[in-house]
Amino acid sequence: MLLAMRDDEELGRITLAQVAEKAGVSISTVSKVLNGRQDVAGPTRDKVERLLEAHAYRRTTRTSREAPLIEIVFHELDSMWALELIRGVENVAKANQASVVLTESGTRHAPGPEWIEGVLQRRPMGVVLVFSALPAAVKEQLRARSIPFVIIDPAGDPDPDVPSVGSANWNGGLVATRHLIELGHRRIGIITGPDDMLCSLARLDGFRSAMSMAGLDVSPGLVHFGDFHVQGGFDAAATMLALPSAERPTALFAGSDLQALGVLEAARVAGLRVPHDLSVVGYDDVQVARWSSPALTTVHQPLRQMAEEATQMLLRLRDDQSASTRLELATSLIVRKSTAAPHGE
Amino acid sequence: MLLAMRDDEELGRITLAQVAEKAGVSISTVSKVLNGRQDVAGPTRDKVERLLEAHAYRRTTRTSREAPLIEIVFHELDSMWALELIRGVENVAKANQASVVLTESGTRHAPGPEWIEGVLQRRPMGVVLVFSALPAAVKEQLRARSIPFVIIDPAGDPDPDVPSVGSANWNGGLVATRHLIELGHRRIGIITGPDDMLCSLARLDGFRSAMSMAGLDVSPGLVHFGDFHVQGGFDAAATMLALPSAERPTALFAGSDLQALGVLEAARVAGLRVPHDLSVVGYDDVQVARWSSPALTTVHQPLRQMAEEATQMLLRLRDDQSASTRLELATSLIVRKSTAAPHGE
Repeated sequence: MLLAMRDDEELGRITLAQVAEKAGVSISTVSKVLNGRQDVAGPTRDKVERLLEAHAYRRTTRTSREAPLIEIVFHELDSMWALELIRGVENVAKANQASVVLTESGTRHAPGPEWIEGVLQRRPMGVVLVFSALPAAVKEQLRARSIPFVIIDPAGDPDPDVPSVGSANWNGGLVATRHLIELGHRRIGIITGPDDMLCSLARLDGFRSAMSMAGLDVSPGLVHFGDFHVQGGFDAAATMLALPSAERPTALFAGSDLQALGVLEAARVAGLRVPHDLSVVGYDDVQVARWSSPALTTVHQPLRQMAEEATQMLLRLRDDQSASTRLELATSLIVRKSTAAPHGE
Repeated sequence: MLLAMRDDEELGRITLAQVAEKAGVSISTVSKVLNGRQDVAGPTRDKVERLLEAHAYRRTTRTSREAPLIEIVFHELDSMWALELIRGVENVAKANQASVVLTESGTRHAPGPEWIEGVLQRRPMGVVLVFSALPAAVKEQLRARSIPFVIIDPAGDPDPDVPSVGSANWNGGLVATRHLIELGHRRIGIITGPDDMLCSLARLDGFRSAMSMAGLDVSPGLVHFGDFHVQGGFDAAATMLALPSAERPTALFAGSDLQALGVLEAARVAGLRVPHDLSVVGYDDVQVARWSSPALTTVHQPLRQMAEEATQMLLRLRDDQSASTRLELATSLIVRKSTAAPHGE
């Protein structure tokens, strides 16, 4: 409490006393909100937070009091992405003598109120969130305390008013498909991700554009939506590989490496050899892409670099709140052993 | 400083003043050592730390001042183990309203002095270390500050005076080999881990015991040490699969799932089908074991549960420093699609 009162003296653009007066509450209540205490009624807290944010209240003593911690929040840690992203954040944290605090929110969207309370008590240098959508309340709470945050958004659906780092999904779909066309494939199928994720749609559009530019038709039976997991890739591939031979694809573009692993298994079960009988392209270039048999040709999504850039952006935002808002890193094709010219055509 | 002086009043078994007197230094110097400050000469620091440890100095106010943080330290985050272990720690941390701080030490052994300094400043509930050997200095520093720590030791080489959690490596080697013998295999090869890790030797001994109990000879040409990575598995398997057919193994036990993936690739390159021409058993049961084509039969090492147990042990140690010191969890065989009866024998 004493420290918060000092903020008042070394004021930013608005003092705690002014916020208290405008909100019609005591300075001590404003302090409680700032320090993440839970003993403030919801409506009062909301009012104070809106005022703090509206007046861009900044603790002038923030930097000296912050802890050498960088937070990273996932909705789930089970993705193959998670480890690459953690390593990227850890690399930049280490270079800045900071440690990494890891939170798994357990929901697809955002961390709960206990998390915000914890962040306010820990006073980290900033927060990297691996989410597509961040609830307005979380944004307000972080902004009201001048805790910088950046979203890593592999799903490609950036919130326009939040600093974020993503990668080029449409272009990834394009280069994967062009590679198959250049090898001589004509009947090419796609298993993109879920139909409610923008990155799935962007990869599909890149696929369609490559096909269209090459004068090739896209058969509706060769366009599938998956779940970005192994099973989704297996199911869609099994369906397409069961088509009559004149309709069966000679190549499949799977919208994630895990789906591509499912395609490899569907091919094995169908008695098809990859790449002799079927070419397969993945997406992401997570570690397992190098370890599958055969090793996957895939679109490299620079996950570790995305996390490094997000963390660097975070550190820049501490000094300059108007620093870069959206960064999109390039994707590139990595050719390994799962693609070849179509056999016997 | 003020807080450290209060410790003195609410003394534990020895007061700071007594430590200062014995060490022939000022109370302020003892405080500096306790708080991880770097401006104390090395020999003085060592002397104070030895005294603190020898007299089991405990801050009586520790619990009230500790942060709701649990630390986990890896030497490298690139192992497939890492994510499973993080999830285990995170599960228990979440249930105790704590966050997880992650550190990658970057060396095979232990974190450096900046890390210790950071830990002392963060005052976590405890530290989970993923290392086989912990230098005496790190142990002393943590003990001197009453910060509990537990080692997760998948390598099976526990330091006897440190609380640790491991799993049953010898038994894992035994059940993997028995499974292959029961399927009818007689020429069985092994690719264990590096020859300087106890877990590699324990798995190899389990293999030898199973072979011996079945009255089967172990051919020296079918025993290889690997690196626990894909390439090591590939190289050793390629060597064994190139043997004349009367000596070539019909089944391989790979001491890690990554090595098993290398075996699958060596089989593919040699034109052998798994499991029709070659059975393969992995070890660890990391996620990729389910995703390979075919899915791997493997020895399940309960990594997440090991991390959960280690974290629980840590929390118990806060109240009772004599709580459990070594826990070894069972391993078990998971039969999937990479093993079958030998073909044509």
